[in-house]
Amino acid sequence: MKGFVVDKHERRLDKELDSLKNKLLRMAAFAETMIDKTISELVERDDQIGTQVPEYEEEINRLQIDIDEEAIMILATQQPVAGDLRFIITASKINSELERIGDLTINIRENVRTLLEEPPLKPLIDIPRMAELARQMVRDSLDSLVKEDVLLAQSVISADDQVDGLKSQVVRELVTYMISDPRAIERALALILVSRHLERIADHATNIAQDVIYLVQGRDVRHPRIVRDNE
Amino acid sequence: MKGFVVDKHERRLDKELDSLKNKLLRMAAFAETMIDKTISELVERDDQIGTQVPEYEEEINRLQIDIDEEAIMILATQQPVAGDLRFIITASKINSELERIGDLTINIRENVRTLLEEPPLKPLIDIPRMAELARQMVRDSLDSLVKEDVLLAQSVISADDQVDGLKSQVVRELVTYMISDPRAIERALALILVSRHLERIADHATNIAQDVIYLVQGRDVRHPRIVRDNE
Repeated sequence: MKGFVVDKHERRLDKELDSLKNKLLRMAAFAETMIDKTISELVERDDQIGTQVPEYEEEINRLQIDIDEEAIMILATQQPVAGDLRFIITASKINSELERIGDLTINIRENVRTLLEEPPLKPLIDIPRMAELARQMVRDSLDSLVKEDVLLAQSVISADDQVDGLKSQVVRELVTYMISDPRAIERALALILVSRHLERIADHATNIAQDVIYLVQGRDVRHPRIVRDNE
Repeated sequence: MKGFVVDKHERRLDKELDSLKNKLLRMAAFAETMIDKTISELVERDDQIGTQVPEYEEEINRLQIDIDEEAIMILATQQPVAGDLRFIITASKINSELERIGDLTINIRENVRTLLEEPPLKPLIDIPRMAELARQMVRDSLDSLVKEDVLLAQSVISADDQVDGLKSQVVRELVTYMISDPRAIERALALILVSRHLERIADHATNIAQDVIYLVQGRDVRHPRIVRDNE
């Protein structure tokens, strides 16, 4: 709750925290677009759809450095406390998560290149579904930060089970392809790695959601086994 | 450089920063032991070697929460500036990296379980070597933090190329196994995933080393392409 008298210092801090928030949202928007374009390349078998993906990754990397610098500057000059302080630490963690998501999308794109050099192995259904879930999880995790919405953050954590389930299904199916036809092995392996990277993107979105819950509730849900030790 | 008069506040801050450092070193020691025990289980085909691995992971998770809480407490009560402030932010990032390393080792152990249920596919040479390199990288990255040793941190970053090279070699070899014998596919896939997780552990050690260089040199080496824009 804001005090009755809003002084200059407080307004400046609010502005700086908003700037951090906006930069995180920009990073997430780039990450979402990267996932989208990369999986479209795979599904539509057109390697021109994602030509801007490497530029988006550079944008993400630039924003990461920016956000870290800004966070340190705020800590040094404004000496925020309590909730504001926790927000800045959380922003710095979310920052790293989003950067990893960018990296993983670049890894996916390498596998997509390999896959586009050969005829398609099978119609793709579960992988695009995983990608869509992962993309939505990234969006929702950031939305949950901006709105400080714990329920939305919890829905991200639940969606992670769906992604894990799809990934296991994808691996099982692709292993049967490998067993029945050795010529399928390299393509199946590339698809397994794509699904593995998507699973990890979902994990990073889950980390963000857990950080948000931690921030909002001021308790740590990142390791429920520990929190629930006495249950 | 310390001022001539060391006041109480400064001595308390130093003590608190040392405590953070020691907790990070403990996390790293647990992570190293986890990697070591898990790969020994695989090599010696004995699933009793790593029975304490899950406990070590809980220790790591506990330390992670501890370190975050301590960092926030120091920021709130001591309002550190300049190098001390950067150190705390770096500690909080390294904290997350070490926790991921713990998670990845748990993933490796799941694949090891699968592998121990069936006869060995082949003698293992490159995977134990990758594990040893990754373990050493974790140790050296933390040492480079404690000693603020940029050269040591750079050696960690160089070692990452070796790990990546070994991983590509492992994947290539295992794919030939898969092609020549469909019964090898599931075991080969499990070994590919082990090597993939080890590669990611090395990546996290590399992130730590980059954070250390950033901390010591006060410049950002995490995205050299950006830094070198004008070259």
